[in-house]
Formats: sequence, structure tokens, C-alpha cells
Amino acid sequence: MRESEILQIIRARIPGTGDDAAILPFRNTHLVLTTDMLHRTSDFPEGTTPKTIGWRSVAVSLSDLAAMGARPLGVLLAFGDPSLDERCVMGVLEGATACCETAGTRLLGGDLDRHQELTLVSTAFGHVRNPVLRYGAQVGDLVCVTGELGRTQAALHCFATELAECANDLFCFPPRIAWGYQLAKVATSMIDISDGLARSLHLLAQASNVGFVVEASALPIHPSLLKHLTSDECLDAALFGGEDYELLYTISKERFRTELGTVIGRVINSGVSLHTAGGEIPLANRGWEHGT
Amino acid sequence: MRESEILQIIRARIPGTGDDAAILPFRNTHLVLTTDMLHRTSDFPEGTTPKTIGWRSVAVSLSDLAAMGARPLGVLLAFGDPSLDERCVMGVLEGATACCETAGTRLLGGDLDRHQELTLVSTAFGHVRNPVLRYGAQVGDLVCVTGELGRTQAALHCFATELAECANDLFCFPPRIAWGYQLAKVATSMIDISDGLARSLHLLAQASNVGFVVEASALPIHPSLLKHLTSDECLDAALFGGEDYELLYTISKERFRTELGTVIGRVINSGVSLHTAGGEIPLANRGWEHGT
Repeated sequence: MRESEILQIIRARIPGTGDDAAILPFRNTHLVLTTDMLHRTSDFPEGTTPKTIGWRSVAVSLSDLAAMGARPLGVLLAFGDPSLDERCVMGVLEGATACCETAGTRLLGGDLDRHQELTLVSTAFGHVRNPVLRYGAQVGDLVCVTGELGRTQAALHCFATELAECANDLFCFPPRIAWGYQLAKVATSMIDISDGLARSLHLLAQASNVGFVVEASALPIHPSLLKHLTSDECLDAALFGGEDYELLYTISKERFRTELGTVIGRVINSGVSLHTAGGEIPLANRGWEHGT
Repeated sequence: MRESEILQIIRARIPGTGDDAAILPFRNTHLVLTTDMLHRTSDFPEGTTPKTIGWRSVAVSLSDLAAMGARPLGVLLAFGDPSLDERCVMGVLEGATACCETAGTRLLGGDLDRHQELTLVSTAFGHVRNPVLRYGAQVGDLVCVTGELGRTQAALHCFATELAECANDLFCFPPRIAWGYQLAKVATSMIDISDGLARSLHLLAQASNVGFVVEASALPIHPSLLKHLTSDECLDAALFGGEDYELLYTISKERFRTELGTVIGRVINSGVSLHTAGGEIPLANRGWEHGT
């Protein structure tokens, strides 16, 4: 079966698993928890350094906390590797620790195991009084993103063309924790872009029971992507390329300020469409499917 | 490198990772968090059902919470599998959910991924005002265990002799959460027996800077083990066979009550030894090493 089909069945059985992270009311606040599994075959191209592997493994989980506007409390990391080579383990640890520090949190522990395939599972937990959910978008709200789109696609291009140093730099994306704090006070709905902008727009639209129209010319394309690809390729990568881990959110016009990111469109009654110079076209619900 | 060597280096770098779970002060209590990676080759013999795989994956993490006397708040489960066969995924989910219910907690979410080798990473988190640590044992205290020893060795024997139903039953051990609550109020030090009684005694002794003398005839041997092995083999399995996940703890004589488990020895100044009919012998610091 496809992961997405199985996930649908699981979500029907475990209440509350439709958002970026699990939410648990605790002592006048909410604990927020998320776990992510990454592994060699699907997540780390040839040329990825151990340090980058550690960084990225932690960053994907912290990104889920950012998407709910949560403050991180700590990270656990389980690491399986065929060799348990000291240099590799220490590199992973160094990257994981550095990413935690960037996000103002700490690596608190983990597990280590001999494993056929390099595998990392990071668990991040944090707290937030009022978590931002995937539903809550109101017709008339602005649709916005943090940072730039296409960073991971640019990294993959660099890995493929053996620009390993550049690729590793791009792959170590900063989790948008501080941005998440700010947005927690004002966003009406939020998600992190793990499976591409188009897929994330559809997920937000379904959860909020609204639609979106997005302006193609407004999309903030990552400069490294512009350097390597044509503008049509850039647009495709920004819309359908996955794992950018920027925040996609909706916000009322009155509350938006330019330091909160880039306005890319607005909330409408239904449908997800892209406005281009040639007119308005439906935006397909397709994107990046992990590990398939 | 061996896992134990790498873990020593990591522990030196990440403060506070010497105990069963990470501890984080939060809102007048402590959050307690732990993650465990299990996989096909080293943890699930031929004949293990998906339901047992799900149960056991969750139970090992809950056991770490029990060892600190914590009340569980929830569990996350990351599951990687080569086929993502629906029957297998649903079986794992059923087992994981059932184990959570046994411990009075819930499966809150997780991750799902296509993976070369069946791999499960469970993360359990809970809270406790005063966590029981591995240090704190006082000379003169009693040394005790919950339940019986050798359950997992009996299960492995059943798997090897194709008594699959019996093996699966034994493999689904109950995490000692309720026992952990009770002991949190009275135990002076505690650990769960994940790598065998002998190894766990040495870990407690090192952490508390004390020694232990254990009475061979006092060890509570699991009835299923007695059914299959000679008494010498039983003693060896109880001492050095791993993954029983009973709680090993120390407690003052005055506070011990028979419903808290079985007294197996007492705390002395130094050394870990076994008292048998033939006299007192040093107990080797050897045990079960996971995944090697």
C-alpha cells in the first residue's frame, strides 16, 4: 500500500493525528510532540555528511513544532547504523546538537543500535498555550510563507552535480521556530511545507474547508534554485518539490506585517488554484511522497 | 565499535543521559522522556506476530518510564517496513494500542515509512514529581525485583522450538507502570532490567557507588522458564538473559512490604556478588548487548 493510504486508515483510528504534531493538554498549557523517521535510501543522497544527517533529522521534527507555534523543550534521537563507525556517530551527534542550539533547545538523549540501513528517528517536544492548527483559515485571509521555496530542490540539484559542500549547506535548513512563536499569536491556520507547497495548500484547504488562489509571480524562489534552473523549472520545484520545511499560514489582512514573511495569495471559498500571466489554473494536489 | 563504547562517549557529551529516561523540570513537576529503537534482525525472532511487535515496541519504552516511577502521558511510534502490508501495519497498531491501554495511556501519533528492514522506534513520555534515579542506594537497603526473571528467555526458547503462540504471549510483557508508581514513593534507586539482572546490578552499583550481594535461591524464576530448562540453566538465564523489563530497586528494610516484589539481596559497601549453596562468588558484569 501507499503510505498516504495507510496513514488515512491510521488517522481514522487514532484521534487527533491529523495535524503536524500530537497535542496534549497539560498544566494550563499544551505539550506538543512529534516523531519523524529518516533513512539512507530515501532521505540522504550520496554525499550527505554525517553532520548534515544529524542536523536534518532533528530539523524536520523541530519544524513540526514550529508549525504549531510551539517552544521546543527538547529532542530525542534514535540512530541505527550498519557500522556504528565512531566518526559517523560523532558527526551525527554534532549536527543534531548544533541544530538544537539553533532552535534554542537541547538534545536530551536517545538510542543507538546496529542496523542494516542508516536510520534516524528524532522526536521533538515542546509547549504552547494556544497551538495553531491546520484548520482556522477564514475567507478573505492572506496566504503567506516564511523564507524561500525550493531550497531542498536546489540541494538535490547540487548533490546530483557533485557540488557536495553547497548541497550540504542547503540541506541544513533552519527550523522556523522563532517565526513560529511570532505566528502563534496571529496566524489563523498553519502547516510546515514537508510535501511541497501544492500538497500543503490542499491539506490546509481541506482542514479549514476553504480554497486558495495563489499568485505565481509572488512565490519567493530560493536564490540557489534560480541559479541552477530555468524559471519554469523553478516554479515547478517551488510548487511540487518537497521538504522545504518553510511555514505556510493564513492571517487576516489587518494583522499581517512584512517581517512575518511573503504574501503569496488569499483564502477563497473553495478550490486551490494558481494565478499566472496566462490566467487562473487549478493547482494539482500532487507533491512529494516520502520514501516511496 | 561496540554500542556500549559509543554510548559511553555520547554520555560524556550529553549531560543527564546516564539514566533510563531523560528528565526535564517543567511546571512544578518533571517530564520524563525516552526513545527505543527495535528491529527485525535483533529483536523479533521468526514467528513474532505484528501484534506482538507493536506491543513489545511500546512496552520497552513504557518500562523506562516505570523505572523512574513516572505516570505515562502518551506514546509516539515510528514504523518502517519493507512492504507496508496493511495486515502487518494494522497488527502493529493493534498491539501498540493494547499495550498503551494496559499502562493507562494512549498512542498519540507517529510516523510511517518504507524501510529495508522492519524497524520500530517508540517514544514514551510521562511525568513524575520526584523521579527515582539509578543512584541513591544506601548500604543496608534491601535489593528487590518486581515479577519474575527469565520471561524473555522462556519466550526465545518457545520461538526456537516453534511454540509460537506461547512465545508471543510471553513476549508481550506488561510494563511495570503501576508498580513504578508505588515504588516512586519508597525506592532509593531503580532501573529496569533491560540487559539482564547481572548487568543491571552493576549499573546500579556504579551509579550509587555501593555493592550488592544477591541470594541465588531467592531469585524469582519465571514458571515458563522452569518448565523448559534445568535449574542451572534457569539461574544463568535469570542472571544474564536480557530484556526481562522487570524493575530492580533498592529500598530500606522499614519500608519494604511483600506486595512490592521479591527481596533478592542487600546493599553492601562494594562489589557485586552472588551467594549460593557453595559460597559467595563475584557476579560478572556481563549481559545482553542489544543488536550485536
